[in-house]
Amino acid sequence: MTLGRRLAAEALGTALLLATVIGSGIMGERLAAGNVAIALLANSIATGAALYALILVFAPVSGAHFNPAVTVVATLNKQIGNRDAIAYVGAQLLGAFAGVAAAHAMFGEPLFFASQHERTGAAQWWAEGVATFGLLVVILGSARQSLPAVAAAVGAYITAAYWFTASTSFANPAVTLARAASDTFAGIRPVDAPAFVLAQMAGALAAVAAMRWLAPPGNADGDVR
Amino acid sequence: MTLGRRLAAEALGTALLLATVIGSGIMGERLAAGNVAIALLANSIATGAALYALILVFAPVSGAHFNPAVTVVATLNKQIGNRDAIAYVGAQLLGAFAGVAAAHAMFGEPLFFASQHERTGAAQWWAEGVATFGLLVVILGSARQSLPAVAAAVGAYITAAYWFTASTSFANPAVTLARAASDTFAGIRPVDAPAFVLAQMAGALAAVAAMRWLAPPGNADGDVR
Amino acid sequence: MTLGRRLAAEALGTALLLATVIGSGIMGERLAAGNVAIALLANSIATGAALYALILVFAPVSGAHFNPAVTVVATLNKQIGNRDAIAYVGAQLLGAFAGVAAAHAMFGEPLFFASQHERTGAAQWWAEGVATFGLLVVILGSARQSLPAVAAAVGAYITAAYWFTASTSFANPAVTLARAASDTFAGIRPVDAPAFVLAQMAGALAAVAAMRWLAPPGNADGDVR
Amino acid sequence: MTLGRRLAAEALGTALLLATVIGSGIMGERLAAGNVAIALLANSIATGAALYALILVFAPVSGAHFNPAVTVVATLNKQIGNRDAIAYVGAQLLGAFAGVAAAHAMFGEPLFFASQHERTGAAQWWAEGVATFGLLVVILGSARQSLPAVAAAVGAYITAAYWFTASTSFANPAVTLARAASDTFAGIRPVDAPAFVLAQMAGALAAVAAMRWLAPPGNADGDVR
Repeated sequence: MTLGRRLAAEALGTALLLATVIGSGIMGERLAAGNVAIALLANSIATGAALYALILVFAPVSGAHFNPAVTVVATLNKQIGNRDAIAYVGAQLLGAFAGVAAAHAMFGEPLFFASQHERTGAAQWWAEGVATFGLLVVILGSARQSLPAVAAAVGAYITAAYWFTASTSFANPAVTLARAASDTFAGIRPVDAPAFVLAQMAGALAAVAAMRWLAPPGNADGDVR
Repeated sequence: MTLGRRLAAEALGTALLLATVIGSGIMGERLAAGNVAIALLANSIATGAALYALILVFAPVSGAHFNPAVTVVATLNKQIGNRDAIAYVGAQLLGAFAGVAAAHAMFGEPLFFASQHERTGAAQWWAEGVATFGLLVVILGSARQSLPAVAAAVGAYITAAYWFTASTSFANPAVTLARAASDTFAGIRPVDAPAFVLAQMAGALAAVAAMRWLAPPGNADGDVR
Repeated sequence: MTLGRRLAAEALGTALLLATVIGSGIMGERLAAGNVAIALLANSIATGAALYALILVFAPVSGAHFNPAVTVVATLNKQIGNRDAIAYVGAQLLGAFAGVAAAHAMFGEPLFFASQHERTGAAQWWAEGVATFGLLVVILGSARQSLPAVAAAVGAYITAAYWFTASTSFANPAVTLARAASDTFAGIRPVDAPAFVLAQMAGALAAVAAMRWLAPPGNADGDVR
Repeated sequence: MTLGRRLAAEALGTALLLATVIGSGIMGERLAAGNVAIALLANSIATGAALYALILVFAPVSGAHFNPAVTVVATLNKQIGNRDAIAYVGAQLLGAFAGVAAAHAMFGEPLFFASQHERTGAAQWWAEGVATFGLLVVILGSARQSLPAVAAAVGAYITAAYWFTASTSFANPAVTLARAASDTFAGIRPVDAPAFVLAQMAGALAAVAAMRWLAPPGNADGDVR
C-alpha cells in the first residue's frame, strides 16, 4: 500500500468522521426541541455507528487511525515511522477540517466559524484524559481480535464515552481542532482547544504505559489493521 | 441462482426496506408528541437494524443491492451484465412501491398519495451526494470482509447518515421515487425527486472513482455477496 | 440433547423473553412522562437486545424457537417431529406466562390481569401478518449464517418491526396469549388475541412458501441452531 | 498471565465500568430535562456498549469478571482457585470505588458521598435476583461461543435488563457497594445495599443450578475467556 493511498484513506476517513460528528450534532440540536439529552443520544449513536463502518473500510488501507493520538502511540510502538506519522497527522487535520466544511455546507452554515462553546477547567481536562486513556486501552487491548470486533469495540466505546465523560469525549486532537471551527452543538472555543489536546496526549501516554505491562508483548499494537 | 430468484430477492428485500422506512416514520411521528428528534431516532434505528437483517438474508441470493445506484456501480465494475442490471432496477422499483403500499395499509393510509414534503436546494443536493458517496465507499471498501460485518457496516452507516446529512440520507433512487408516493414523515415532493436522484448518482460515481484508486483492485466490488 | 433439556430451554428462554417485553414496557411507560415514542424506543431496544443474548444461549440446546409459529415451520420443514413440536409449544406457552408473572412481580402488579388494550381491525391483522412473514423470512433466509449473525439478525429485525408495523409486531402466538394476561403497556385484550394468532400463522406460512422457492434447498431450515 | 496482571485487569476494567455507569447516569439526568426515560436510555445504552468493549479487551487477560458474583460462580465451577478468587473480589471492589471517584471528579461532585436513593422491598429484591440469574444464564450458556459474540451478549443483556427489571439491574455486588457511594442517578442507599447483594448471590446460584443441568458439561464455564 503506497503512502499516498494511506494518507488519502486517513484524510477521507477523518473527513467522514467529522462530517458525522458535526452534522449529527446540528441535526440533533435542531430537532430536539431543547432537550439536549435527545440531541446527544442521536449524536453519540451516529458517531459510534459511523466509526464502526469507517474503521472496517479503512483499516486494511491505513490502519484507520483518524486520530493523531493513535498515530503517536503507533510511532512509540514502532508500528509506523516518524516521517509517515507526521504525514498521517497532516492528512488527519486536512480531512477533519474538510469534514467540518462538508457538514456545514449541508446545513446552510458558513464553511468555518469559530465556536463560542466554552469547555474548560480541571474537571473537563480530567474527562478528556480519561476518555483518551480509555480509547487507547480499547485499541491496544483489542489488537489481537478480528477487525469487525475491534471496529465495533471502538464505536461502542465512543458512544459510551460521549455519555460518561463530562466533556462528551473528544479524545482526538484533530477532532478537537476541527470542532473549534464550528459554532454548533459539537463546537469548542479555539482558546480551549490546546488544553484539551494536552489532556488527550497525557491520557494516551498513560494508556501506553498501562497496556505495555498489562497486555502480552505481541499485543502492544497501536494499529487496528 | 436463476435470474428469476435474484429478481424476487431484490423486489422482496427492497419492499421490506421501504416498509421499514415508511412504517417506522409514521409510527415515530404519531407517537413522538411533536418531538421530531425522537421520531427520527426511531426511524434511523429501525432502518439500520432492518438493513442488517435484510442484507444478511438476501446477499447470498442477489447481492442485496436494493438500490439502483449500487446496481449501476456493480455494472461499471463488471459484476453484473447490463440486461440483468436493468431487470434489477425494475425489480427494485416494483418492490419499493409495494413496500410503501404495504406500510400505508398497516397504518390506515391510502396505498399511495403524493408527498407534499419539500426537500430541495443546493444544500439538500449536496447532502444527498455526500450520503450516497459515503454509502458506496462503505460498500466498495468493505467487500473483502465477511457478510455479517458488511451488513452491519451498511446498517450502521445508514443509521448515522440519517443524522449527519441535512436530507436524512435517502441515498437510493428507488427509495426516493417510492417515498414521493407517501405524504408521511419520510416523504418527498415528486417534483423534488429527480434532483435527488441526480445528486445520488453523482455521489455514487465519485465513490467509484475514489475507491478504484484507494482500494486494492481485488476489492473493487459492488456486491456484498 | 434430551427432550427434557430442550423443553426446559424453550420454557426458560421464552420466559426471559416475555419478562423483557412486559417489564421494559412497564418501565418505559412509567418513566416516559407520557411520551409513548420514548417508551416504545426503550421497549424495542430492550427486546431486540435480549433476543440476541437468548438466541445465542439457547439455540445450541433447543434451536431457540421461543415461538409456536417458528416451531410449526420447523415441523413443515421436517426439522422436528410432530410430538416434539407439540411439547415445544406447550413449553413456550408455560414459559411465556411464567415470564409475564415474573415481570409483574418485579413491578408490584398482580401476577396476571387481563389487558384492556384494544388491538383489532384489518390494518392490525395485516400488520401482524407482515411482521411474522418478515420474521420467518429472516430466520429461514439466514440459516446458513453463523449463530451470532443469525441471533443479531432476529434481534435487529424485531427492534425494527416494533416500529414499522402498526401492531408493534407481536409476531408470536405464545407471546400474544401471554400479553393478553397483562394490562400494561404491552398488553392486548384477550378477545383480540385469536385474530392476531391467525394472522401470524398466515404470515408464517406465506414466508415458508416464498423462501422454499427463493432460497436454495439446503437453506430451508426453521432452526437457528 | 501472572496474578498481578490479572488483578490489574479486573481493577481497571471494573473501574471503567463504574465510571460509565455513574458518569452516564449523571450526564443523562443533567441533560434530560426531567424525563427519566431518556436518562435511563442513555445510561443503559452507554453501559451495554462499554461492557462490550471492556470484555473484549480484558477477557484474554483475566476472564473479564468485573463482578464478585461471576467470580464466585467461577470458583464453584473450578475455574479459579479460592485464593485467586478472593484477590479478584478485592481488585473488583478497589476498581469499582476508583471508577466512582473518577466519574465524580469529571462532573465536579465529591469523590464519594452516600446515596439517598431508596431501593428496597421484596419486588426490588426479586428484580435483582432475576437480573443476576439472567446474567449468569447468559455467561454460562454462551461460554462456547466466540469472545466477540459473548461480549456482545453480555452488553446486550445488561442494556435490556436495565429496562426489564424494576431495580434497573445492578446484578453485581461490587457495583452495588460502589453505587452506594454516589448520591447521583445511579445511586443506592448504603442501608439497602446488603439485601441487593444477597438477592444477587441467590440469583447467581440459581443460574448455576439451572445451567449445570441445561447446558452440556463442557459448557459449565464461568469465564468468558
